[in-house]
Amino acid sequence: MTKGEMLYEGKAKKVYLTDNSDLYIVEYKDDATAFNGEKKGTITGKGQLNNAISTIFMEMLNAQGIPTHFVEKMNDNEQLVKKVEIVLLEVVVRNIAAGSLAKRLGLAEGTVLPKAVVEFYYKDDDLGDPLINDSHIEVLELATPEIVAKMAEYGRKINEILVDYLKARKVTLVDFKLEFGITPQGELILADEISPDTCRFWDADTNEKLDKDRFRRDMGNVEEAYQEMLRRLGGVEA
Amino acid sequence: MTKGEMLYEGKAKKVYLTDNSDLYIVEYKDDATAFNGEKKGTITGKGQLNNAISTIFMEMLNAQGIPTHFVEKMNDNEQLVKKVEIVLLEVVVRNIAAGSLAKRLGLAEGTVLPKAVVEFYYKDDDLGDPLINDSHIEVLELATPEIVAKMAEYGRKINEILVDYLKARKVTLVDFKLEFGITPQGELILADEISPDTCRFWDADTNEKLDKDRFRRDMGNVEEAYQEMLRRLGGVEA
Repeated sequence: MTKGEMLYEGKAKKVYLTDNSDLYIVEYKDDATAFNGEKKGTITGKGQLNNAISTIFMEMLNAQGIPTHFVEKMNDNEQLVKKVEIVLLEVVVRNIAAGSLAKRLGLAEGTVLPKAVVEFYYKDDDLGDPLINDSHIEVLELATPEIVAKMAEYGRKINEILVDYLKARKVTLVDFKLEFGITPQGELILADEISPDTCRFWDADTNEKLDKDRFRRDMGNVEEAYQEMLRRLGGVEA
Repeated sequence: MTKGEMLYEGKAKKVYLTDNSDLYIVEYKDDATAFNGEKKGTITGKGQLNNAISTIFMEMLNAQGIPTHFVEKMNDNEQLVKKVEIVLLEVVVRNIAAGSLAKRLGLAEGTVLPKAVVEFYYKDDDLGDPLINDSHIEVLELATPEIVAKMAEYGRKINEILVDYLKARKVTLVDFKLEFGITPQGELILADEISPDTCRFWDADTNEKLDKDRFRRDMGNVEEAYQEMLRRLGGVEA
């Protein structure tokens, strides 16, 4: 596989063309941002750690019948993925109130929700990725109602799989963000990553944060938390 | 009808018990607030004007088969309404981008939406009445999915009726907010008011604002705009 031209550089990843027109290479960076890019920093080793962690989750989801863009891990910082057109909607699934949901609904952080909450955010940095509803999605033509329903369904299904998987590893899945893409053949598949950058993971016994909130809130031991997550998932420590 | 104890004082209205346990008296105030109460003021004659304007809209909607809480206008500032328990959701219906929608979706004010947008806001002053989705409504148990669907359906139906009614009076209906209540018999009915406080009305030819945005944005001639709206609706000027 030959790495071609860089197609896109995001806040935490770069995407490259390859000599196979159906495949991209994703390179994970150590750069960390929060609050829509207002806070910037570097987490040493984050690129390797998230590449390893996301690989474990994506392989597991592929095995469980969830279609994903993941093909294979190539090396420490790179993975091979299927080419998709990203749907401009972030799907957030929440089991426990934290972050913006706690603020929006006036719930104490840590409140267990009676049922998983599914939210859609408009993927637009300039607008600060605002929460939107089905009616907004329809007028912006971001996705058809069928695609939106399927994304919510995948979100709930992935949540069930991840909650069980993580519980066995003494981790509570508080919430997470998913992105989806459409293949050239028109199939909706899971894209992006699943990592401490995109999930809230709490130690099941102590509620200690094992995710990017340590960076967002200047809690220290950020790299160590990512390493601990990889260890719990049975991956090789970076 | 004897006016009893004051049950509730809101930003623009007071609600009183009556000697009929199924009926309340609503008194319209001249007080004006905006931006979740951060901006306060008085619009001379607003109470009378909104009482008269809302009476015209509610009588028209009752006649068109939309169940409302409105019973009758009693005098300049008061009307008699059916007792309801207010659903803690504001339904906003939008035909043209303005205010928070323009900001949220990055649309220029005045952009005609391809289809009416329906939004639900959590009626909670402390939280600043945040936008919420069906999933939030479910976990907060603010209303059953059936009630939520019916509120959206009434919202779209009322929008169609109002758009036509106002077009004939040279007014463009940009957007509006509705509140609903549940009667002791369990019926969902339209409550609150329909007025320049709760709608964006633009002159159909000039797009001149004939609503509370004149107060929000310090544009002057606020009372005159409310008077003009009453005049267009065929009401007697206050």
